Amino acid sequence: MKKQRGQLIILSGPSGAGKGTVCQAATAHNPNLKISISATTRAPRGAERDGVEYFFLDKADFEKKIEENAFLEYAKVHDHYYGTPKAHVLQMLDEGTDVILEIDVQGAAQIKEKLGFGVLIFIAPPSIEVLKKRLVNRKTDSDAQIQLRMKNALTELKQAEHYDYVIVNDTVDQAAADLEAIIRAERCRTQNNLEIIEEMLM
Amino acid sequence: MKKQRGQLIILSGPSGAGKGTVCQAATAHNPNLKISISATTRAPRGAERDGVEYFFLDKADFEKKIEENAFLEYAKVHDHYYGTPKAHVLQMLDEGTDVILEIDVQGAAQIKEKLGFGVLIFIAPPSIEVLKKRLVNRKTDSDAQIQLRMKNALTELKQAEHYDYVIVNDTVDQAAADLEAIIRAERCRTQNNLEIIEEMLM
Repeated sequence: MKKQRGQLIILSGPSGAGKGTVCQAATAHNPNLKISISATTRAPRGAERDGVEYFFLDKADFEKKIEENAFLEYAKVHDHYYGTPKAHVLQMLDEGTDVILEIDVQGAAQIKEKLGFGVLIFIAPPSIEVLKKRLVNRKTDSDAQIQLRMKNALTELKQAEHYDYVIVNDTVDQAAADLEAIIRAERCRTQNNLEIIEEMLM
Repeated sequence: MKKQRGQLIILSGPSGAGKGTVCQAATAHNPNLKISISATTRAPRGAERDGVEYFFLDKADFEKKIEENAFLEYAKVHDHYYGTPKAHVLQMLDEGTDVILEIDVQGAAQIKEKLGFGVLIFIAPPSIEVLKKRLVNRKTDSDAQIQLRMKNALTELKQAEHYDYVIVNDTVDQAAADLEAIIRAERCRTQNNLEIIEEMLM
């Protein structure tokens, strides 16, 4: 049997919903599932390595790639560019690897439209109270920052209805199992198996 | 969190594709997944018990239920009726149980249309050669019967494109895991989680 193209998983959700932890748990179980590596113009921090945490580019290279349409999406944050390299993602998919893109709600639908494929998954907290508790417990944000994140979370939650799936992250294990089940199920989607049916009908 | 309604799994596939074995493996892993019990007018055989293998009805009762629209589908085979009792299925779904209906390709789309919901899954063999080998190895059919089943299989395979998912039953364990993943993923479908999102936005 020919190896199927990998599934492109486009993942969004409010800060504190647990996207990162869920992705880490799912990729730890599943060697065929990888998180896409972003490109950035900011300098490496600490032990960050080129091609592992990020692809580090200088500004001129990044802007050249923008012109070449080499990013699935990009954004400028605090004077630094961040982007998703298209060739990197498409190559992994061609090799049959399932790829996760963590993208904000603005970028997610655009990527699916641009590529014509992709599975949109929204990671939601089980409740607003739990979300706030998680942000407070991280102890990384000021009260004002937490208030801003809570306001943004409501805006983002309104976009959940445009996603294919909603994973409610009550416990990380359950949410990671949901993510893995969705990827496995998407591989079984009829459009991904028509070739094998047609071979039988020849 | 309110318990979600169960998923209705409408399963078809050619004789010899392994529907029965896959369902047994999946229900053995998953206590929340049940196979729907059919009603029939044929007499119990051996140790068959009413309400376990079948609901046994006499002909007059069965025909009364047909008039009352109490079956999701029914058929007359060799002078005996067989049908899927609607109330039995809907009650299990309401209780949050996932229910499998094994239905031929003619009935499957009709049930989804009648109910307005349901997940259509087609179980396919990995190849025509494997299908034939399985039918021969069962040693229950004559050569003529096997030839007829192979002819019917091709007709059924042409309908696979109308299903939501195709599970290629290469090994029973893999196919049962696919079935369980599809059920888990369907629970994450956005339309099944809008309520929890709306609660957060109130």
